Amino acid sequence: METTLGGIVELTGGKLLRGEAQTVLSGFAALDAAEADQVSFYGNERYASQLEDTKAGAVLVASTEVQAPDQTALILVENPVVAFDAIIRKYGVRPPQFSAGISDAAFVAETAEVDPEAVSVLANASILAGVKIGRGTRIGAGTVISENAEIGEDCEIGPNVTVREGCIIGDRAIIHPGVVIGGDGFGFEFSEGRHQKIEQLGIVRIEDDVEIGSNTTIDRARFGETVIGEGTKIDNLVQIGHNAIIGKHCIIVAQTGISGSTTIGNYVVFGAQSGVAGHLNIADQNTLAGRSGVISSIEEPGGTWFGYPAKHLKESRRESMQLKKLPGLIKKVKELEKTMNQQG
Amino acid sequence: METTLGGIVELTGGKLLRGEAQTVLSGFAALDAAEADQVSFYGNERYASQLEDTKAGAVLVASTEVQAPDQTALILVENPVVAFDAIIRKYGVRPPQFSAGISDAAFVAETAEVDPEAVSVLANASILAGVKIGRGTRIGAGTVISENAEIGEDCEIGPNVTVREGCIIGDRAIIHPGVVIGGDGFGFEFSEGRHQKIEQLGIVRIEDDVEIGSNTTIDRARFGETVIGEGTKIDNLVQIGHNAIIGKHCIIVAQTGISGSTTIGNYVVFGAQSGVAGHLNIADQNTLAGRSGVISSIEEPGGTWFGYPAKHLKESRRESMQLKKLPGLIKKVKELEKTMNQQG
Amino acid sequence: METTLGGIVELTGGKLLRGEAQTVLSGFAALDAAEADQVSFYGNERYASQLEDTKAGAVLVASTEVQAPDQTALILVENPVVAFDAIIRKYGVRPPQFSAGISDAAFVAETAEVDPEAVSVLANASILAGVKIGRGTRIGAGTVISENAEIGEDCEIGPNVTVREGCIIGDRAIIHPGVVIGGDGFGFEFSEGRHQKIEQLGIVRIEDDVEIGSNTTIDRARFGETVIGEGTKIDNLVQIGHNAIIGKHCIIVAQTGISGSTTIGNYVVFGAQSGVAGHLNIADQNTLAGRSGVISSIEEPGGTWFGYPAKHLKESRRESMQLKKLPGLIKKVKELEKTMNQQG
Repeated sequence: METTLGGIVELTGGKLLRGEAQTVLSGFAALDAAEADQVSFYGNERYASQLEDTKAGAVLVASTEVQAPDQTALILVENPVVAFDAIIRKYGVRPPQFSAGISDAAFVAETAEVDPEAVSVLANASILAGVKIGRGTRIGAGTVISENAEIGEDCEIGPNVTVREGCIIGDRAIIHPGVVIGGDGFGFEFSEGRHQKIEQLGIVRIEDDVEIGSNTTIDRARFGETVIGEGTKIDNLVQIGHNAIIGKHCIIVAQTGISGSTTIGNYVVFGAQSGVAGHLNIADQNTLAGRSGVISSIEEPGGTWFGYPAKHLKESRRESMQLKKLPGLIKKVKELEKTMNQQG
Repeated sequence: METTLGGIVELTGGKLLRGEAQTVLSGFAALDAAEADQVSFYGNERYASQLEDTKAGAVLVASTEVQAPDQTALILVENPVVAFDAIIRKYGVRPPQFSAGISDAAFVAETAEVDPEAVSVLANASILAGVKIGRGTRIGAGTVISENAEIGEDCEIGPNVTVREGCIIGDRAIIHPGVVIGGDGFGFEFSEGRHQKIEQLGIVRIEDDVEIGSNTTIDRARFGETVIGEGTKIDNLVQIGHNAIIGKHCIIVAQTGISGSTTIGNYVVFGAQSGVAGHLNIADQNTLAGRSGVISSIEEPGGTWFGYPAKHLKESRRESMQLKKLPGLIKKVKELEKTMNQQG
Repeated sequence: METTLGGIVELTGGKLLRGEAQTVLSGFAALDAAEADQVSFYGNERYASQLEDTKAGAVLVASTEVQAPDQTALILVENPVVAFDAIIRKYGVRPPQFSAGISDAAFVAETAEVDPEAVSVLANASILAGVKIGRGTRIGAGTVISENAEIGEDCEIGPNVTVREGCIIGDRAIIHPGVVIGGDGFGFEFSEGRHQKIEQLGIVRIEDDVEIGSNTTIDRARFGETVIGEGTKIDNLVQIGHNAIIGKHCIIVAQTGISGSTTIGNYVVFGAQSGVAGHLNIADQNTLAGRSGVISSIEEPGGTWFGYPAKHLKESRRESMQLKKLPGLIKKVKELEKTMNQQG
């Protein structure tokens, strides 16, 4: 960014408490990371000591009564968090604005329904036969949308994504690079000493307002649909098995695995590196702690689960408390034995 | 799908027990998911109650003596599972049929041996110098086959796959999107305060009839070969380290990691999110439970292993039983102490 | 490889102890894997029995006093490991030598700074607007370098990699296939029953001499930078969250996850499938064992940590020893009870 203290005052609608309006500012950062040509913000009393020591050239504050180094300019604003967000949104690094058009270096099959006035397709993307793409959607460079897949409106499909045949994505989806939607489910029947493939002929359906993190994989159903419910947000490197049904507004943190044919309710939270076995149900609003592994259905809503096999947090804590008593117990039994032997 | 009850009777070679032949059917689904315009199947008595409550328009059954809602049409067939499979295969979503030809939007190096009459190469695929591809193989859009790699016959290499230099893939392989075959093994020597790269100059060899799930990574050997044995099936997001030798007909479920230089026998099964340390041997027909982590070799065939560090299932169960006795033990020792103090 | 025993003698500067110089050799392998037309090496007494049984056509040895089969030719060299390395480097499978030029099948935006005399860009790569690429760097086929990203000199960026907008990569980076640098961090604010996206407008900065394994994902910062320090080596399928700061010369083995806003010191080692929660600090030179999960900061340098929640190795061992005493304890308490009852 290239602006001045005065420019920031104008952008945030603030009032310059201290400092010269023409001072050049070339970036923004947190209080403990900001340098002399950067602006920062003080939004929470927790960070009072960081403010005292900051090297920031300027800080957004909500009060005139703050302790900051003398050389730090101060801008008074109503809400420093909101004001700083305005700076980030203006000067942060973001994908270029949507602009319709199909790159000459992209491949779009003749039978694909892609309006060049309403859709953006970048270089080396491949839009195969029968695909439909909604208005306002951008398809990243190197991305492959396979035969007859359908993508809704205002989606941001990143680079090097793969959407396989017939899969359906709703509106406003954000799909990060390297995601694979609709690879085959993992299904085999063992006969004559070999694993025979069970054909995977269903699809994946992604409802509206879903976000899917980099290199996550979501398998197509054996038949019917694997479903990601409206508003659910999935982090990077997550695996969703075939015929899984994920509810609405779930949060699935990185490297989690959800096995095939498992049904997840709404507002369920999966901590990082957690997992669920196949053919289970998880009721609404349950939370799985990071690294927990669930191997039986959770029918009650609203619990928190920990460990492997995952137990209700209360039970898990009780067990962990009992384990801590073990050294004392060993000692006590030795003493009892000794006393007994003396008595005997 | 667009057909009628009569069409389904014809396709499955069944007999219409109930319903009108001209009734339109537009899909297929499981008993508990099927709607009034869909056909389902009843293949196992376990699902008797689902049959009683189904909303399916028609159900394939093996007997005239079944309890189904009055409005549900019934088709008598010998084997409902097999008959339903015929429907899925006809109407399910699958990649378009193989059709030889090289897309104008693909790149094929002059020295690559790719017969345009026998191989299919889709848009934006890159086939680099010296590559050989066998008859009947399809290379997906955006896929990169690097210098001198060799791919056998009748393979299905999905979109956005990467096969690196010199790697060899046998016949009838199915490689799902985003798979990386032949990235460098992870090898460094620490000297002068830095990790110095040990060059990784071997290859990956994939034998016949192997399937590899989306975004799985298989590293090339330091020298020699990393091997995936015939008929082995690998799920999504699995990591196979350099110089690992995986036997024949293994099953490796999602997010499992097999470290470098480990040798796996035949018919070994890895549950989801399991792992094996490096330089170990796992004998034939062992099964690792989901999330188990093996840190020493398993020389006996046929066992089941659980937990981390993984123990034989029997031992693991014994330990878990003993842990359950801990609360009772704590109580008992308190009582003993009390009695003793009273006696003393 | 196609050479003779004499050719290997010349290449390694060795002395032929046994065998005919014109014998054809067509490959190299470890002692226990080498066949009659391959050369191997004997670099460590640990492998004496493998040398006795080897089927290798020729073996590099450091001494005339070794036990090898009669039909095995022997070449005396100063250091068999170094000599064998010379063979691997000459005959191993490696990416073709760097040769500058932009493939006709690549896409390079007009505003990108890519010197065709100094940079190599392969087929179907996409170099978007404002990108800068340093001399001696190769961009693999199908790779996408997004708007305004900067890549240093002498980097090896593999096929199908994605680097997102504005991210910065230093010199001599090795980025393996399928890596995603700069996908959005996973950040949401829950309001009105939905997860609202927090814009992720920072970047990823990769310092010099970093290597990143296949399909690993590194998220861009909310604002500011996610940093991978100089000389750090990252294996496959690793997840690095937004605003994480990874120190210099760390080793991060496959399938590990490092959560957002966590700061890692220098020379820290993460075993495979390990994890660290968000907003923590890990001091220099700590080692996390495979599958360990750290949920609180580690302020002391130099420790080794195990299990989940991760404990110092000593403590973890003590606990595991105590657990082993449980069966004996149960028995002892039963006996005490019995004795007591008899006494009582």
